[in-house]
Amino acid sequence: MSAALPPRIDSDRLWQSLMDLASIGATELGGVRRLALTDLDRQGRDCVTGWLREAGCQILVDAIGNIFAIRPGAQATEPVGVGSHIDTQPSGGKFDGNYGVLAGLEVIRALNDAEITTTRPVAVAIWTNEEGSRFTPVMMGSGVYAGAFSLEHCLARTDLNGATVADELARIGYAGTDSAPRFAAYFEPHIEQGPILEAERITIGAVEGALGQRWFDLELVGQDAHAGPTPLAMRRDALVGAARVISEVRRIAMQYPNNARGTVGQLIVSPNSRNVIPGRVQLTIDLRNARAETLADMVEDIRSAIERIAADERLEARLAEVVHFEPHHFDPHWVDRIEALAHARGQSVRRIASGAGHDAVYVGKTCPSAMIFVPCEGGISHNEIENAQPEHLAAGAQVLLDAVLEAAGTATPPA
Amino acid sequence: MSAALPPRIDSDRLWQSLMDLASIGATELGGVRRLALTDLDRQGRDCVTGWLREAGCQILVDAIGNIFAIRPGAQATEPVGVGSHIDTQPSGGKFDGNYGVLAGLEVIRALNDAEITTTRPVAVAIWTNEEGSRFTPVMMGSGVYAGAFSLEHCLARTDLNGATVADELARIGYAGTDSAPRFAAYFEPHIEQGPILEAERITIGAVEGALGQRWFDLELVGQDAHAGPTPLAMRRDALVGAARVISEVRRIAMQYPNNARGTVGQLIVSPNSRNVIPGRVQLTIDLRNARAETLADMVEDIRSAIERIAADERLEARLAEVVHFEPHHFDPHWVDRIEALAHARGQSVRRIASGAGHDAVYVGKTCPSAMIFVPCEGGISHNEIENAQPEHLAAGAQVLLDAVLEAAGTATPPA
Repeated sequence: MSAALPPRIDSDRLWQSLMDLASIGATELGGVRRLALTDLDRQGRDCVTGWLREAGCQILVDAIGNIFAIRPGAQATEPVGVGSHIDTQPSGGKFDGNYGVLAGLEVIRALNDAEITTTRPVAVAIWTNEEGSRFTPVMMGSGVYAGAFSLEHCLARTDLNGATVADELARIGYAGTDSAPRFAAYFEPHIEQGPILEAERITIGAVEGALGQRWFDLELVGQDAHAGPTPLAMRRDALVGAARVISEVRRIAMQYPNNARGTVGQLIVSPNSRNVIPGRVQLTIDLRNARAETLADMVEDIRSAIERIAADERLEARLAEVVHFEPHHFDPHWVDRIEALAHARGQSVRRIASGAGHDAVYVGKTCPSAMIFVPCEGGISHNEIENAQPEHLAAGAQVLLDAVLEAAGTATPPA
Repeated sequence: MSAALPPRIDSDRLWQSLMDLASIGATELGGVRRLALTDLDRQGRDCVTGWLREAGCQILVDAIGNIFAIRPGAQATEPVGVGSHIDTQPSGGKFDGNYGVLAGLEVIRALNDAEITTTRPVAVAIWTNEEGSRFTPVMMGSGVYAGAFSLEHCLARTDLNGATVADELARIGYAGTDSAPRFAAYFEPHIEQGPILEAERITIGAVEGALGQRWFDLELVGQDAHAGPTPLAMRRDALVGAARVISEVRRIAMQYPNNARGTVGQLIVSPNSRNVIPGRVQLTIDLRNARAETLADMVEDIRSAIERIAADERLEARLAEVVHFEPHHFDPHWVDRIEALAHARGQSVRRIASGAGHDAVYVGKTCPSAMIFVPCEGGISHNEIENAQPEHLAAGAQVLLDAVLEAAGTATPPA
């Protein structure tokens, strides 16, 4: 038996695979538009599964179109999983999701180069429709995998043109019949999609969990009136009320620990005319926190603030909760190990919370799981200008490889 | 010579003329849509000039389509003018403008019934395109009359389909060639378009003047970012900045005397997505005050507040002034007399400011002028549900008649 190389991520090869995949659905501004279950998604799936087959993997596809590429281990046990998604936002970037899948491919290629047989199999997962841009719910494939949604419900979901998930899966050739493997452990590398690592000049984020999310719709109703003849004291100005709510959302979020977030992202004014006092405003409130109890306290504070503001301003207020995700905590052992493995590779590392949801949150309901964040430029994602540094991407993939080796065990140790 | 009746407004006849005119362009919800220089505007003009001709008036039409119906006096001097406009908002009501014109018609009819010859002629004016909904600028006819805009500029203005004012005037037969008469005095009755008279249960408003108006466009630019991963302290949230500006606009307007008003009526958020921190907000600011110096102080306060908020929130702020109307003060003698004449008729009366612009403001640059306000239901106008009480409309027309008699003089006193 020839002496194998030690298992090592090839930064240039990882980068090239990212650039090659990004050419499928490339936009003029340097981003990617590759919506779930479109012809471009098929091309992306065909491309990546082709690479994985060449690397010796067996390809399985389940009924919601999730792809599992299995590199056999010495024992036919539950594999160690890695992965993410390759569908994008309508104006998406090259790295969101794609990095997790192609870091998985790079792990397989590095194991092959080093001629390592792991004890457990290693699987690369490509989850269907993580973005939710074309079909809701978001994180559809991993949600079905984890039992958060029923398969039937998701297959019947339609896009704006009335096409169903079932029809589109069949059309692109990814309506599979294989059983999805359960994992011994699951790791998902991802760009941070936030500004913290870049600002602190840290390369690796050991992700402790994903923030809980509670989303609300608020409608405030006052009375349209002429801006000139109506004295201030006689107004029922829905936008003045909305402005106070926006300020309160921030003030309340600032008061709480555990990575509290509070955002009003959408606001619509009626009649939205320059010299008419607004009679109606619709706005959204997005509250997040790493702890469910703290998040509940934030919600109560907002409810009270809205009641007080509505009474002050003589407005009707209608508040409806539209999304409720509990906080998720990743496996403490693997969070510790990712931090230690990053240190061992000489990388700067910090613990971090994921503000957004990820497939790893659903998969984490079924097995010990963890995430590895790397910096992205300006914290920007879901945008064609999304960018990341090759050396950061390679460092994250190396920590991933080290964690996979530790979780899967090595039947043939490197020379 | 037979004994004439004393000059008296006929409430039912006034109401009937309002309802008859409102049938031209009537909407399903009880309002009126009769945009300037449309076929419906022609029908309205033909209808009202028909009534005025029947009432013995000579009809003049000037080059911008303003109509002057002259009831001769004993002397061929400058007439006393009354009037308003009969074009409406796209979703307008029955009373805005129409009341002033038809109160003028009712004055003519009442003078005829009482067989009174006034010393000066009495003229009813119908000003072209007061609303400005189809063609800008607003108050076009009275503005040309007063020299605020050139005739050539206004004739060349186009609607959204590219039709010019000149073409449309010719098409509907109101491109006149008569000289517009100058007035000895001008009175314009109007619904208040605000809530004050109704709330205070007062029938007549003696309008002291029209508030000065300064309108601004404000753009605030921060950075779009994912609502989940971006900590509060690292955000550049343009909507949080906008909320503070909205609160400051009200706070500043509340601090000032002289009928200060401050309104943000229009606000547009980008990208306006529930889980994205808004990177850009465009909003309007409308400031009004009865005194130019106070209005200038309000503007300075808002400028300072915006600078402070932009610095705090790390936003770029671009503020542009788009409209600047100086406050107008009506003729103090006639404001006093309208108050006194209302008292003499046993009507409740108060002095009031006009928050909106009116034709009387431009006409007031050319002669002593004043306005008479009557209550409207809920202070609502520019709306199909605009409403007013027949007895209030008659009371306002009676004060108008009394003022016209006083200004025009009576050659043949009533018996």
